[in-house]
Amino acid sequence: MEPGPLSRPAEQGRCVSGSPSAGAACPASLPSTAGAEPGSRPAAVAAVLPAGGCGERMGVRTPKQFCRVLERPLISYTLQALERVCWIKDIVVAVTRENMEAMRNIIQRYGHKRISLAEAGATRHRSIFNGLKALAEDQPDCKLTKPEVVIIHDAVRPFVDEDILLRVVTAANEHGAAGAIRPLVSTVISPSADGCLDHSLDRAKHRASEMPQAFLFDVIYEAYQQCSDYDLEFGTECLQLALKYCHTKAKLLEGSPDLWKVTYKQDLYAAESMIKEKISQEICVIENTKDEESVGYLLKEVLRNELNFVNITSTPLEHTGGNIQNFLIAQCYSFICVNVVSSNFQETQKFLGTLEESSLPLLYPVVVVLVYFLDLTLVPLTQEMENLMWIRELAKEVKKRNVLLSGLLINYSQVKRKD
Amino acid sequence: MEPGPLSRPAEQGRCVSGSPSAGAACPASLPSTAGAEPGSRPAAVAAVLPAGGCGERMGVRTPKQFCRVLERPLISYTLQALERVCWIKDIVVAVTRENMEAMRNIIQRYGHKRISLAEAGATRHRSIFNGLKALAEDQPDCKLTKPEVVIIHDAVRPFVDEDILLRVVTAANEHGAAGAIRPLVSTVISPSADGCLDHSLDRAKHRASEMPQAFLFDVIYEAYQQCSDYDLEFGTECLQLALKYCHTKAKLLEGSPDLWKVTYKQDLYAAESMIKEKISQEICVIENTKDEESVGYLLKEVLRNELNFVNITSTPLEHTGGNIQNFLIAQCYSFICVNVVSSNFQETQKFLGTLEESSLPLLYPVVVVLVYFLDLTLVPLTQEMENLMWIRELAKEVKKRNVLLSGLLINYSQVKRKD
Repeated sequence: MEPGPLSRPAEQGRCVSGSPSAGAACPASLPSTAGAEPGSRPAAVAAVLPAGGCGERMGVRTPKQFCRVLERPLISYTLQALERVCWIKDIVVAVTRENMEAMRNIIQRYGHKRISLAEAGATRHRSIFNGLKALAEDQPDCKLTKPEVVIIHDAVRPFVDEDILLRVVTAANEHGAAGAIRPLVSTVISPSADGCLDHSLDRAKHRASEMPQAFLFDVIYEAYQQCSDYDLEFGTECLQLALKYCHTKAKLLEGSPDLWKVTYKQDLYAAESMIKEKISQEICVIENTKDEESVGYLLKEVLRNELNFVNITSTPLEHTGGNIQNFLIAQCYSFICVNVVSSNFQETQKFLGTLEESSLPLLYPVVVVLVYFLDLTLVPLTQEMENLMWIRELAKEVKKRNVLLSGLLINYSQVKRKD
Repeated sequence: MEPGPLSRPAEQGRCVSGSPSAGAACPASLPSTAGAEPGSRPAAVAAVLPAGGCGERMGVRTPKQFCRVLERPLISYTLQALERVCWIKDIVVAVTRENMEAMRNIIQRYGHKRISLAEAGATRHRSIFNGLKALAEDQPDCKLTKPEVVIIHDAVRPFVDEDILLRVVTAANEHGAAGAIRPLVSTVISPSADGCLDHSLDRAKHRASEMPQAFLFDVIYEAYQQCSDYDLEFGTECLQLALKYCHTKAKLLEGSPDLWKVTYKQDLYAAESMIKEKISQEICVIENTKDEESVGYLLKEVLRNELNFVNITSTPLEHTGGNIQNFLIAQCYSFICVNVVSSNFQETQKFLGTLEESSLPLLYPVVVVLVYFLDLTLVPLTQEMENLMWIRELAKEVKKRNVLLSGLLINYSQVKRKD
């Protein structure tokens, strides 16, 4: 039924565009990671991302990897997750010729680094093979070098973290191949030709093969070179190729539920909510006063008590410009700017300026709530309306750059306070 | 390895609380449904829902079927989906003793009908068996009668529709058993004892077995009575029991992606978004004028043009009270009440009263946007503020009953309009 091994298929996985290996600012020692021994991670690791799918299961025209989640293409989240891991030297993305330009724009727009593009094939295996070829061949116009270990991941699994990447790479270095697995959610059955149940599989004895996977480069490249057109056309499992053609038994590693693959429309909704949850774990309160009895301080304390699952930090307003890099590193996307008895908007505007100049709002929407405690008995109504209009106009302006601004004017009578 | 068939296990699936078969207002002829022949559906159909799971995969303490989605327990959505199908005479839910009272409260609170409770067993199969026993045994305190065909469904698959239910029931009537299947999302592999890959399965030759499933009652009841303790303890597939013990080869029917099972936290997020999407497909604009040149009419036209995926209907305000049943049937959960040059809030309040009395806000949040076009040059500022405060207080009040109210006062100068 299955044709025998043939010579490698015709299409070439040339490196279409490349950036030099980042020579990245990677710490010499890796963070300690459960289940992995940092010492056994090889020096040269690259990743291949097949992204040539057409997304027919999603029921939409846009291939799922290019579907937007919070206004940003899904694949950009996955690239960011891989880039964050500084020991991955090169990331080769295989995209179809039609999507090459769109992919280049995504790389430029979201400032992705260490990415090279290869042309996708007609099937997943052909795309991966093209990605591997781009890494294997020392082309004169390409700065890629052959890695010791290559990670294969899906463009539509944006929640991959360093822990599982390190675990599969380390295990691949030892066993030749490794992959993440998950328990089966549904029982798997085998239908007979007439569309009836032939038999069902014991759920306890089977697992779902997920991504990421990792391989000694020579093992998986050899397997792809050996494998048949039938494999390239209908195969779905890289671990199986390593087993069949190189007799390499992959080590299987339990992954987290976050590794799930965005496949259907409901998965896009889920991804959006997961990302929203992730970026709302931290709130930074920016205050224009350090007075520990001030209403701003009390607001922060109330937030700390009420939102006990959220990490709340605070910083004085005047230092914000300099501190923005810290927020960037801390991945804080929610800010509450508290102004007590002051409607001087200059500092706020300066803060918003710094925020917009950073890459923060490029990657995720940044939420800024301006809170002004004013003694409204001392402020003329026209002034109050002007303030509101100012905030509204500012909100419209910054929304274009993915900053979601809202404002609150709260009456804070100094007289009453001293009662 | 597997012990031989034993006598049925000790726990009893007694009918804990029952309501008489609804004798439902079911149309004599069924709606024509793709892929099914209404003529071959049996007269007596019941459903069993195992709901004894502890939700350990969700990573939360609340069992997943009781997790809240838009403030309502997930299982209530599933019950509603089954109840909507009037030819399902009885629905038996198997819940653990600890959750029996909570389940009774859910039934009462959300007005579920045709539900009986059975006690869940320690495993899924034992819970289903108890549910079947409740249907099989003519207990003096129970109004349940043995059905010809029984549907087995999961409490955590809330998006089941009449089409697939009818298809499995019809196929079960013909073949003895039938179940919904879906293509595999991931490749399935078999690990060896040392945690390495033994072999991977051909994805094209396997399917995920989903729910709903349906059986001739006598077939599945016989299978459960015959089956071994090992099956009851470790089995996961009812279709397999029918095959093994009654030699009944189930018909497999392709289901939609909506049948997916809420298993992990991201699935709860997805379910919430799916429900939100579903209930925002229809907007009813309620107007206090029929003037086709009025700004209210124009607003409706703009909405129709801008939101071209949403169905927009309209009705005059004074008839709303009588029409609320129509909205209920049409499952409209979004209302825009347009008041042109009138701040008479009585009609609005009457509408909100009718809404709250209906079961509409019980099942889903109802969104009401009040839009008042007023000539603000003619209204004193104090009056305007009073109006705003009135809307705000009203919003707080109705929110307790799941109506999300917001108000817009829009300046609509009569003078300018006649320019």
